[in-house]
Amino acid sequence: MAKETEYRTDIGWSTADSITVFGRDLPSEIIGKLNFGDMAFLEMTGRIPTDEESRVFNAMLVTLVEHGLTPSTLVARMTYLGAPESLQGAVAAGLSGLGSVFVGSVEGSARMIYEAPEGDDLTAVAEAVVAKYDAAGVQIPGIGHPFHKPIDPRTPRLIQIAQETGFANRPVLLIQEIARLAGVRKGKSLPANATGILGALCCEIGLDWKICRGLGVMARAVGIVGHLLEESRQPLARKMWLDIEERATRHLRDGE
Amino acid sequence: MAKETEYRTDIGWSTADSITVFGRDLPSEIIGKLNFGDMAFLEMTGRIPTDEESRVFNAMLVTLVEHGLTPSTLVARMTYLGAPESLQGAVAAGLSGLGSVFVGSVEGSARMIYEAPEGDDLTAVAEAVVAKYDAAGVQIPGIGHPFHKPIDPRTPRLIQIAQETGFANRPVLLIQEIARLAGVRKGKSLPANATGILGALCCEIGLDWKICRGLGVMARAVGIVGHLLEESRQPLARKMWLDIEERATRHLRDGE
Amino acid sequence: MAKETEYRTDIGWSTADSITVFGRDLPSEIIGKLNFGDMAFLEMTGRIPTDEESRVFNAMLVTLVEHGLTPSTLVARMTYLGAPESLQGAVAAGLSGLGSVFVGSVEGSARMIYEAPEGDDLTAVAEAVVAKYDAAGVQIPGIGHPFHKPIDPRTPRLIQIAQETGFANRPVLLIQEIARLAGVRKGKSLPANATGILGALCCEIGLDWKICRGLGVMARAVGIVGHLLEESRQPLARKMWLDIEERATRHLRDGE
Amino acid sequence: MAKETEYRTDIGWSTADSITVFGRDLPSEIIGKLNFGDMAFLEMTGRIPTDEESRVFNAMLVTLVEHGLTPSTLVARMTYLGAPESLQGAVAAGLSGLGSVFVGSVEGSARMIYEAPEGDDLTAVAEAVVAKYDAAGVQIPGIGHPFHKPIDPRTPRLIQIAQETGFANRPVLLIQEIARLAGVRKGKSLPANATGILGALCCEIGLDWKICRGLGVMARAVGIVGHLLEESRQPLARKMWLDIEERATRHLRDGE
Repeated sequence: MAKETEYRTDIGWSTADSITVFGRDLPSEIIGKLNFGDMAFLEMTGRIPTDEESRVFNAMLVTLVEHGLTPSTLVARMTYLGAPESLQGAVAAGLSGLGSVFVGSVEGSARMIYEAPEGDDLTAVAEAVVAKYDAAGVQIPGIGHPFHKPIDPRTPRLIQIAQETGFANRPVLLIQEIARLAGVRKGKSLPANATGILGALCCEIGLDWKICRGLGVMARAVGIVGHLLEESRQPLARKMWLDIEERATRHLRDGE
Repeated sequence: MAKETEYRTDIGWSTADSITVFGRDLPSEIIGKLNFGDMAFLEMTGRIPTDEESRVFNAMLVTLVEHGLTPSTLVARMTYLGAPESLQGAVAAGLSGLGSVFVGSVEGSARMIYEAPEGDDLTAVAEAVVAKYDAAGVQIPGIGHPFHKPIDPRTPRLIQIAQETGFANRPVLLIQEIARLAGVRKGKSLPANATGILGALCCEIGLDWKICRGLGVMARAVGIVGHLLEESRQPLARKMWLDIEERATRHLRDGE
Repeated sequence: MAKETEYRTDIGWSTADSITVFGRDLPSEIIGKLNFGDMAFLEMTGRIPTDEESRVFNAMLVTLVEHGLTPSTLVARMTYLGAPESLQGAVAAGLSGLGSVFVGSVEGSARMIYEAPEGDDLTAVAEAVVAKYDAAGVQIPGIGHPFHKPIDPRTPRLIQIAQETGFANRPVLLIQEIARLAGVRKGKSLPANATGILGALCCEIGLDWKICRGLGVMARAVGIVGHLLEESRQPLARKMWLDIEERATRHLRDGE
Repeated sequence: MAKETEYRTDIGWSTADSITVFGRDLPSEIIGKLNFGDMAFLEMTGRIPTDEESRVFNAMLVTLVEHGLTPSTLVARMTYLGAPESLQGAVAAGLSGLGSVFVGSVEGSARMIYEAPEGDDLTAVAEAVVAKYDAAGVQIPGIGHPFHKPIDPRTPRLIQIAQETGFANRPVLLIQEIARLAGVRKGKSLPANATGILGALCCEIGLDWKICRGLGVMARAVGIVGHLLEESRQPLARKMWLDIEERATRHLRDGE
């Protein structure tokens, strides 16, 4: 067969009596040995995390799981209302909106850090980054928060864990310096938010920025299932639909 | 406001300086304290797992993450080919097929165990279950395997972990007894497979059977991201499409 | 090549200078000759509709396109809020909820009619169908309406078109007789609703009941795009999210 | 109620005995009066098309329905394999990949035409457009074709219909002039392809370029349903999966 039509995956394969994943025997080397976050790390790097990597990566994923009633969880609940036999469809619908507006800033800050100029003087590097975004009229990803003031409460906790695990290096320091200088420029406090630190931690671990959105997607899949469970017991989707429909068409019915 | 239009979630909420999830302070009580699997447990039960629950539940999720090239991972890869800017859409597409054929057997075996007759004589209970499925002409979920012979290699490992954590009680014993008796009836070995044991473990933990599919969905979300990463580095979707298209329309072009 | 690995589609194929769809030259025999509904008919039957089929099938699709603010259109709008760069993802999310609860009744009534006993006496046939559903404790699909009283306003119009085109035969008569007898049994008027007549028309045309849901899915795809256009000009998704979130967590914040 | 929390849709609403869509009575003014393409036109413009608009818009949609085995239709077929009870999920999955790579060029060429400099000298305008894309190193959307030579067979047919209906004005002329000049620059024939003409026709009709992708999405929803029907009768998804899986892991099994 010609090279051009050959297929290749190196992730996993099976025989009648074995299952191998990333070169390891699934039953004896993975199940019961790795926790769910470690398994996600294996999927994203091809290797077993160290204890420090396990701690910081699990913390990153856990941070992204739950944000209460968001467009994603409302979407999942309303989809479940129409197709309760298809839980997977409700999760899929909920994930479909994790695009540029809500989850994009993790990949945005990771990319910004990866593409920052080299150099040991982090203030100079941060200054160059801030100036570049300013010149382009583009908002710096991962800093400030519309709601959490004066600081996103997840930020200091994530930095603490990064420090405890040895992952508070150039990327984590740089996002904070970028945030500080951007705040000076704008004349207001704009500390790094959770997605900014998470983007920096993706860089610390060495994840490709294009796949960073994947962390948010896998984490939210977990959170959405939790919301579907609550919806099955304490529904709000039908009420919301009928209420919004009534309010949004009132002006038409009043015209009668 | 009238009762009828009231909404209520108890999962999470925020103030300017705090984020609370399932009644716990997210930064100080959850991030860095729970691993990703524990967080999933919290979503599905509303409480922090014990050490034993943590171990068995993480093992259950890890078991479901990766199955190599499956319809789901192929779907995600081909979706990513058309919309690489929308990683979330590729994951969503991949999850959409986790329906009755592939992931349904976890919920099927959980439901079968929950709905089994009461009684201390597990052989009698299992006999009743097997007879009921036989009479209805319905396949018993969670036993036998089309490919793994003589036994699904995950089965003994999951049973071992269940025993070590104290979760090899009535549900885990019952699925094995059902498998044994079904095998006797069919005259061939039909040991419980991974989804059968996982369904039983859902019962051990007390998960509603309707939400058991959620375990597979969240776990596969993790695995699909891994496949999208491989696809971005070592693509096969385009080749597959062009190859299948060429082969499936050859009879039409030959007719020219 | 062995039979087992052969692939085959008969829908369409191309050469460097031609595109053939269902055996017809796409540019000269289809584009500009068939309207969009005729093309959908071709996809679902493999043949060009007669004038009568064209009229009734286009009417069926048009009936299903727009239902105002429904869970599906709200889902699409909220998904678009998070990923405006991915219009296809918003449509996909909106379609994901077209399951057993909302669109299922077209296929339900089509199936009921196909599986009805044979016989020329439609009253006897309808009586048998109603009795069967009654005995099973299952609701008869396609009759009555929670909101439209005394009759779904689409019903008489669809029946009129069916009569004008020669498609008011056994299926359309039978659904009406079933509705009449069910109403007698319940002691209230339960006329066939739009999905009931549409299910009957699927039978008149000879569509497999398993694919009837597809009519609703393709029609709603059109309607959802209309809602995304309105959302882009006159947004409501963000307001809805923030409003519902605030109301659903008020009891938690009040407890502070 | 405060302005900020008001909702408004103008698409449709109902009373007990009426359904109004875009200000028209659905049963008497729309069902049986508009074909499916006209209804799509109404969704995208808020008005009933003229006879000429009806003809050209239906032709546009029909052009986009069917492309044989594409990533989208393969995705839908493989999703249906896992969740045959959820036809809507299979369509949704298939649509999820209609992103920047495959359907984006309709919106790309529409945008290019809308953003072209003003001026009556179309050659000068086209020259400016080509020079701009060339300078930016960006491929011009809607011209050339990797497979159809010397010209996409849909192109002359769409132009003919545009001429017959009075829609071969500035946009349609401009895309052809852009294609001609780009070809001169590259030293090879690069005639406008179907998506180029379709983008130009979106401009002729006055559709917002951001919603042009919606035409492809709604049209492909129709085509995908056709493929699911074929898959239900003449399946290829399972074969494809097992074949690809076997070939892509052969190198791992050979290493045993």
